[in-house]
Amino acid sequence: MSKPVTGRLQAATVATGETHRRWLLQRHPEGTPVLDDFIYVEDLVPQPPPGKMLVRALWLSLDPFQRLTWNATPRNVELTPLYGPLAGDIVGEVIVSNHPDFEVGDVVNELLGWQSHAISDGRGHYIHCPEGARKVDPTLGPISTACHVLGRTGLTVYFSIVRELRPRPGETMLISTAAGAVGSLAVQVAKILDCHVVGLTSTDEKCRWVTEVLGADAAINYKNVDNLAEAIRAAAPKGVHMFYDNVGGPIAEAAGQNLTDDARITRVGIASQYSTVRADGTPWVYPVDQPMFYVHDYYTEHAEGLAAIAEWLQQGRLKYYEDIIEGLDNAMSGWLDMMAGGNRGKRLVRVAEPTQV
Amino acid sequence: MSKPVTGRLQAATVATGETHRRWLLQRHPEGTPVLDDFIYVEDLVPQPPPGKMLVRALWLSLDPFQRLTWNATPRNVELTPLYGPLAGDIVGEVIVSNHPDFEVGDVVNELLGWQSHAISDGRGHYIHCPEGARKVDPTLGPISTACHVLGRTGLTVYFSIVRELRPRPGETMLISTAAGAVGSLAVQVAKILDCHVVGLTSTDEKCRWVTEVLGADAAINYKNVDNLAEAIRAAAPKGVHMFYDNVGGPIAEAAGQNLTDDARITRVGIASQYSTVRADGTPWVYPVDQPMFYVHDYYTEHAEGLAAIAEWLQQGRLKYYEDIIEGLDNAMSGWLDMMAGGNRGKRLVRVAEPTQV
Repeated sequence: MSKPVTGRLQAATVATGETHRRWLLQRHPEGTPVLDDFIYVEDLVPQPPPGKMLVRALWLSLDPFQRLTWNATPRNVELTPLYGPLAGDIVGEVIVSNHPDFEVGDVVNELLGWQSHAISDGRGHYIHCPEGARKVDPTLGPISTACHVLGRTGLTVYFSIVRELRPRPGETMLISTAAGAVGSLAVQVAKILDCHVVGLTSTDEKCRWVTEVLGADAAINYKNVDNLAEAIRAAAPKGVHMFYDNVGGPIAEAAGQNLTDDARITRVGIASQYSTVRADGTPWVYPVDQPMFYVHDYYTEHAEGLAAIAEWLQQGRLKYYEDIIEGLDNAMSGWLDMMAGGNRGKRLVRVAEPTQV
Repeated sequence: MSKPVTGRLQAATVATGETHRRWLLQRHPEGTPVLDDFIYVEDLVPQPPPGKMLVRALWLSLDPFQRLTWNATPRNVELTPLYGPLAGDIVGEVIVSNHPDFEVGDVVNELLGWQSHAISDGRGHYIHCPEGARKVDPTLGPISTACHVLGRTGLTVYFSIVRELRPRPGETMLISTAAGAVGSLAVQVAKILDCHVVGLTSTDEKCRWVTEVLGADAAINYKNVDNLAEAIRAAAPKGVHMFYDNVGGPIAEAAGQNLTDDARITRVGIASQYSTVRADGTPWVYPVDQPMFYVHDYYTEHAEGLAAIAEWLQQGRLKYYEDIIEGLDNAMSGWLDMMAGGNRGKRLVRVAEPTQV
């Protein structure tokens, strides 16, 4: 589905008529976000000061966790206040550089937000993203993959399985949102590591995709079973040795009833709770008593993880599925639809075509 | 007019009900700004991450130059895009600190913008403001003065006169906007340095204030003379040896007709032009062929300048006049009125009362 880059990137500049487009938070969403919680703004393209570079976004990653950054919490509003930019992982090309370490034409991956252009000092804007701007090697795959399989999504799956779940051959791994960006890779990596894999997803069509295309041993449409715990038991007769959790909530509870005595859990997301409110009326936050997996905790080892993923890709043992939204103006409706289960594989936004020689 | 600080500052925290209020740019103004070019937004108070501090603004300086930062130019939109915060010089108190060099209770002066609270790393957000956060010594004067006479306004006057104009006793200095924040100090400093001082201002009442209170030898209401060049000639019979320019435009032209052969000019502002548009339709910018005075060029010498100003203040030779707007919500109407000539001395906004022990 993704279009490979053809031709070399050239020295590019801001084109006549090129504008700076951004999605901003207009309101902290109450519950499930709606389009009116955001505004889409057009302005002049900024000029980078000394020491910084101007990056033109080519791809924007849409991620469920982004929901959490829009809540009114003292920590969130430092980076995303009202009318602030939305956090987001992009792949872009450097089009103006006053930065000593980056040149015009470099392709970079950084959390630069939901915008067509960004000024970057390369050091990472977000406190939880210490790795800063990463140069993308376009020989490893289409550059779009740098914001999923060959980027944070792939690294999340790699380290959460290899370092945290540590599968032994023949063990059963249960994976929630198995047709999503993380889940679809987790299913395949678990199969590469010789696990018995059970995927959970929300339609019969996606169940077929999870088993027939991704290779899971079984898939359950959790919306179409009377008793999810029993359905899991039937698909995992030896019990669940590893639970790869992307959603939390009732699905995690049903999984919990099937865990073996030595079961391991990796909690990569709790997407079912992101739009909920706590008893005291404040927005949901990650529970302090439930350790979460953070890919940034492994950032010093990202190169090792990328090499392993790239090798699986080259061997044809790992495939990725891009679910592309065309144009930054459609990004938010694409995100809202993704949260309603509308995606298959990695949903990302094509913000612009790369500059071609 | 300013209220002295009584009592010591105490360890403060975010109070219940305390909110983060900010003025944001909603539209790049066309010509003279109007209130609808801005929005006033209320949100949660942010929490400072490691290495940063939370500053509660107490005073905000209103400055004519701020007009320029709101224009749609590639350089401006990096710091002040649409819905971005407005640049502004504040005095505030540190209320939460994760910064190794600042403690709760420290009073700081930094360009932290038109907002009730700001997260700061102390290093200066603006590329043209390399000095970062400055700790204010409350024994030198009321802390409000740190954003005028004992801050950038005073330093501007000191270095522009002492280092750039270099007056010799008996020489004539012509000062535009003589009743303004910069002009009112410039008149007094020029008198301390034994100059013959002629001030320009926009009402007869302000003319009287400039001569009778500030001590200028003559003042001209430029709005009430048929021929400004001739009026200047009458008030400066030996010619203008030094022109202290805050406005540019027709006033500067009239001054130019009276310059001596060895005249010096310091161009501190070109306020008359800030809201104009160039022939090609783009916003006015500082002309590259007219060198401007920038106080930040002297930032390594600011301590020396502050010491000299503090001494004049203690000797009673220099006085300052505060023209206080109450409340951040009134800041923009106060700024618009200042640009229409409504101020006398330094116009500033009382954002909050300091925390008292």
